[in-house]
Amino acid sequence: MFSLDSRLQQDTLVLGDFPLCRLLLMNDANYPWFILVPRCEAVSELFQLDAADQVQLWLETTRLAEVLKDVFAADKMNVATLGNVVSQLHMHVIVRRREDLAWPAPVWGKHPARAYSDVEIADVRGRLRLVLGGHFQFVEG
Amino acid sequence: MFSLDSRLQQDTLVLGDFPLCRLLLMNDANYPWFILVPRCEAVSELFQLDAADQVQLWLETTRLAEVLKDVFAADKMNVATLGNVVSQLHMHVIVRRREDLAWPAPVWGKHPARAYSDVEIADVRGRLRLVLGGHFQFVEG
Repeated sequence: MFSLDSRLQQDTLVLGDFPLCRLLLMNDANYPWFILVPRCEAVSELFQLDAADQVQLWLETTRLAEVLKDVFAADKMNVATLGNVVSQLHMHVIVRRREDLAWPAPVWGKHPARAYSDVEIADVRGRLRLVLGGHFQFVEG
Repeated sequence: MFSLDSRLQQDTLVLGDFPLCRLLLMNDANYPWFILVPRCEAVSELFQLDAADQVQLWLETTRLAEVLKDVFAADKMNVATLGNVVSQLHMHVIVRRREDLAWPAPVWGKHPARAYSDVEIADVRGRLRLVLGGHFQFVEG
């Protein structure tokens, strides 16, 4: 049974579900920073997912990266699965811009998170509604 | 035509070729840190690869991560494509151990690189020879 890691729960907001993954928004308004978590029995490495789920995770990751790049005018998308702190498999999909706080360094541990305001979260949800198709199920926040 | 980015060329050693990707070893003996670079026209984002190359990159990435985890006794594999500095698409596949210098932080920018000795490089090549199958072509270093 799927259960979201408590640290992810604490640091993020739930946006909704793709067929495989729950989509989270890192509660850090410094960057549009998203996280995909496969809703399956907990595994920690990509190659521990079964073959069909691997294909689906790749699809959801690359399609999400593609729409985010457009919607948030990214200079570069950062895609990564690290898991040194949170072992539940999760994929970071992060919009990077040349003028963001950490550029060109990776975002992890670089600056303290700045929590979103309600207006800012509504803006993120609104942008995603424009581009995430019928295969994505929003949860109301 | 494929041409390796000059910064990657400078920072890494060439190990050989998978069907799609050149396999590089980051010249930093602090971590077993590998990089896959698709040998195709330069693109910078995953979703800019054609569909067949995306499938192949995923296969090469996940299979490499799986064998490296065993061979180098990783506690966690870190898999990431960032590209904020080097825009040529490249995938980091990094062996992380609880006792490594940067753990649990990501490796980028954390500690100065420590160049490999010839003996250490031969050891890395020797380990890979045990596990990388006939689909991998070693170059002699």
